[in-house]
Amino acid sequence: MKLNCDLGESFGAWTMGQDEAVMPYIDMANVACGFHASDPSIMARTVSLALEHGVQIGAHPSYHDLAGFGRRSIQHTAEEIRGLIWYQLGALEGICQAHGTNVEYVKPHGALNNDMMQDQDTLKAVMEAVASYRQGLPLMIPATVHARAHESLADAVGLPLIFEAFADRAYDDNGRLVSRKQPGAVHEDPDTIIAQALTLASNGGLHSISGQWLTLKADSLCVHGDNVHALAATRAIRKALRQGDTTG
Amino acid sequence: MKLNCDLGESFGAWTMGQDEAVMPYIDMANVACGFHASDPSIMARTVSLALEHGVQIGAHPSYHDLAGFGRRSIQHTAEEIRGLIWYQLGALEGICQAHGTNVEYVKPHGALNNDMMQDQDTLKAVMEAVASYRQGLPLMIPATVHARAHESLADAVGLPLIFEAFADRAYDDNGRLVSRKQPGAVHEDPDTIIAQALTLASNGGLHSISGQWLTLKADSLCVHGDNVHALAATRAIRKALRQGDTTG
Amino acid sequence: MKLNCDLGESFGAWTMGQDEAVMPYIDMANVACGFHASDPSIMARTVSLALEHGVQIGAHPSYHDLAGFGRRSIQHTAEEIRGLIWYQLGALEGICQAHGTNVEYVKPHGALNNDMMQDQDTLKAVMEAVASYRQGLPLMIPATVHARAHESLADAVGLPLIFEAFADRAYDDNGRLVSRKQPGAVHEDPDTIIAQALTLASNGGLHSISGQWLTLKADSLCVHGDNVHALAATRAIRKALRQGDTTG
Amino acid sequence: MKLNCDLGESFGAWTMGQDEAVMPYIDMANVACGFHASDPSIMARTVSLALEHGVQIGAHPSYHDLAGFGRRSIQHTAEEIRGLIWYQLGALEGICQAHGTNVEYVKPHGALNNDMMQDQDTLKAVMEAVASYRQGLPLMIPATVHARAHESLADAVGLPLIFEAFADRAYDDNGRLVSRKQPGAVHEDPDTIIAQALTLASNGGLHSISGQWLTLKADSLCVHGDNVHALAATRAIRKALRQGDTTG
Repeated sequence: MKLNCDLGESFGAWTMGQDEAVMPYIDMANVACGFHASDPSIMARTVSLALEHGVQIGAHPSYHDLAGFGRRSIQHTAEEIRGLIWYQLGALEGICQAHGTNVEYVKPHGALNNDMMQDQDTLKAVMEAVASYRQGLPLMIPATVHARAHESLADAVGLPLIFEAFADRAYDDNGRLVSRKQPGAVHEDPDTIIAQALTLASNGGLHSISGQWLTLKADSLCVHGDNVHALAATRAIRKALRQGDTTG
Repeated sequence: MKLNCDLGESFGAWTMGQDEAVMPYIDMANVACGFHASDPSIMARTVSLALEHGVQIGAHPSYHDLAGFGRRSIQHTAEEIRGLIWYQLGALEGICQAHGTNVEYVKPHGALNNDMMQDQDTLKAVMEAVASYRQGLPLMIPATVHARAHESLADAVGLPLIFEAFADRAYDDNGRLVSRKQPGAVHEDPDTIIAQALTLASNGGLHSISGQWLTLKADSLCVHGDNVHALAATRAIRKALRQGDTTG
Repeated sequence: MKLNCDLGESFGAWTMGQDEAVMPYIDMANVACGFHASDPSIMARTVSLALEHGVQIGAHPSYHDLAGFGRRSIQHTAEEIRGLIWYQLGALEGICQAHGTNVEYVKPHGALNNDMMQDQDTLKAVMEAVASYRQGLPLMIPATVHARAHESLADAVGLPLIFEAFADRAYDDNGRLVSRKQPGAVHEDPDTIIAQALTLASNGGLHSISGQWLTLKADSLCVHGDNVHALAATRAIRKALRQGDTTG
Repeated sequence: MKLNCDLGESFGAWTMGQDEAVMPYIDMANVACGFHASDPSIMARTVSLALEHGVQIGAHPSYHDLAGFGRRSIQHTAEEIRGLIWYQLGALEGICQAHGTNVEYVKPHGALNNDMMQDQDTLKAVMEAVASYRQGLPLMIPATVHARAHESLADAVGLPLIFEAFADRAYDDNGRLVSRKQPGAVHEDPDTIIAQALTLASNGGLHSISGQWLTLKADSLCVHGDNVHALAATRAIRKALRQGDTTG
């Protein structure tokens, strides 16, 4: 079970996140590509930092919306979505190449991620974009109960998928993340977070907010490093998973 | 003697240039990468058009300044210059890869091009950026009387150079383009333009604005397609060079 | 019946529209404010041109989306909508003040205009923004069969309304513009355009695409100047309305 | 002696500065206008906060360069400089009007401020812009030994000036700020900062880095609130000046 984290989200004079603190604890860095955050200099520093720690580099493309941090849905045609993914994926790869490495996967950011999970045309455009960029490059999408259908769509364009789940978020009985507007949506208790991480890793699922068992195939857990609590949780998950590996 | 042209300079709803009209007459397309013009969708269409006509695709990176079309000098560190070249070069290559092709050279745009020809630190940063992106990828720079010195700098980082000259611009005795603010800077007469193209192709130089012979090694001529006259000149140069090849 | 036209839609090095050609034939210029088109220099030139021709200046604020020309819907909170209207309205007024004039009305652009006509919270945010900016400054909105309801909303914040209609677009029986995707949505025939302009001006309505009479209170007609046909139609409408005034 | 501070420098999801902590201790807030930092929503919140604390609101216009935080010099014509000042000044005033207040002065930011102090054409363009926006609106510029010459230029366009000095920066014998690259450029010792503030307020000058007396007419001191030390210094200056007022 690999840990992935959104990183490189500073921009110009503005700092966001604690990339240096969290990088040692993760396996995969989802690197912002300049459309919702970051700029070429910050991307270069983020790539260097990932290389230092042997962390895989993934492109984290977004709608072009710095002011909205890529969190606002913006109408796009399929042609536009393919274009913005090729552009950002290539831009990060350009920086990777100069550092002797490559982009190893793609995870759409924010509203683009939400939109593709709700609209199949958007998801197809994203899949086509990644598949046509480089054969075998995987796309990371949220683990849901529709994983089988998503795999069929991906197979049609020869695209490998990586499924990610959250240790610190509650899921409803339909396998969707509980909205942050509802109570209990985000786990605050470290023990709950670690328990959910372990059961996702070992048992292939978790208990939903109603207590029901939910089978969720997850290849990676999305963790956070933007504040003290998030960082502590990430370290704790890392430690618990290592112990699980040893004893399991 | 290859013809190169700046293309793909539309942006969103705004159109610039007559890409479809000029593409059949050129060999190398300098494709804007989104920092001074273009966007991912326009880049994708420009790459497709170049492929249709068997035209080589070059990246045309710029300072990030859409409002100023990349024509305004902006202070940058060497680190920033390397970053913006990797980013734009990679972005265009991302779109090329999805179309089954690759970027074959790099030609900096506007103020970045001017600045690198006046400031050696900037030129070194540009050279390092291209050389570290991919071994053997050439950088296109203006043909000047300092070509030998530029080749030494390029050799130091293992970078091939392509020298470009202009058929429609007057040069001074020091091998610099005469400023557009001065009379006679731009050749309007088609015969003068064709004559300068032919002598650059056949004799390795041209006559300066004072009438003096100027040796200028040029691998490519920069032509234009943004208006009726420019397009006619480009066609005439193409035709004259072809006849020169046949009879020469 | 006043004629209004979207103007000042160039950006940096890119030109759009034929502002100089159309300005003599209109009464109200909807001036782009830099978020979907234009920049401070172009805004200053547009204001000067309007002043020369005695044309009223209106702010034409938009979502912030140059690449999409303000035509893509972007999620916004009411607070954000108020902010972007104050900002753009003030920006244009800053340029107006320096030229000894003022903004005389506000007409939202593109997707923001569409969204406010479909979502009452957005419309309320727009109305509050204009009303709180300066007492008595009117908002221009499309004439629809819901004009009475819109007037009630506007009255609640002390906002005058200007209703605009189109001479060159077909309306359905519910008083909505027929989608451009459907046949007959745009009138191409000059006589049809002029007839619709005259009946809107004299009879307070028009015949819908099905031939049914539709009462539509319109204070202004939106005309275009971005191509030869649009310009000819605008001149013809101007002439027909003048003759109507004389003979009426 | 009034205290001014650059504020409202967050942007979208990125936070900069501690506006709420510093606002109670200052008299004048230089509010970013969206070209180097801020956005309409942040500007609205900054204006509200200033109003709460009875702090004067000044426009802090910049070159348009979010990625460079307005710190990079960008070539501009006088027409472009006037345009960008009118635009940003108006934009902030739009937000002020909606909150029942007005912009009370203008202080250019970063590279624009540096450029106008080194290039008289730029300074004239700035002065013309502010003077033509609204009669009597003052421009804040750095206090230097050239104050008399600057006043002559300002008088020519009927522009009031406000001179600002720094309590925490060393000046050379020619009345220029010592470059940050040199040792001793920034005072770290609180007593030195307070002493410089008091002598600027009471004696109309300060001792240069070489110990020489320098007459500098200053109407306002520029203070900072972006970290714990800056905030402590600001509070200490405020307290020292108040005591000076009482005992003086």
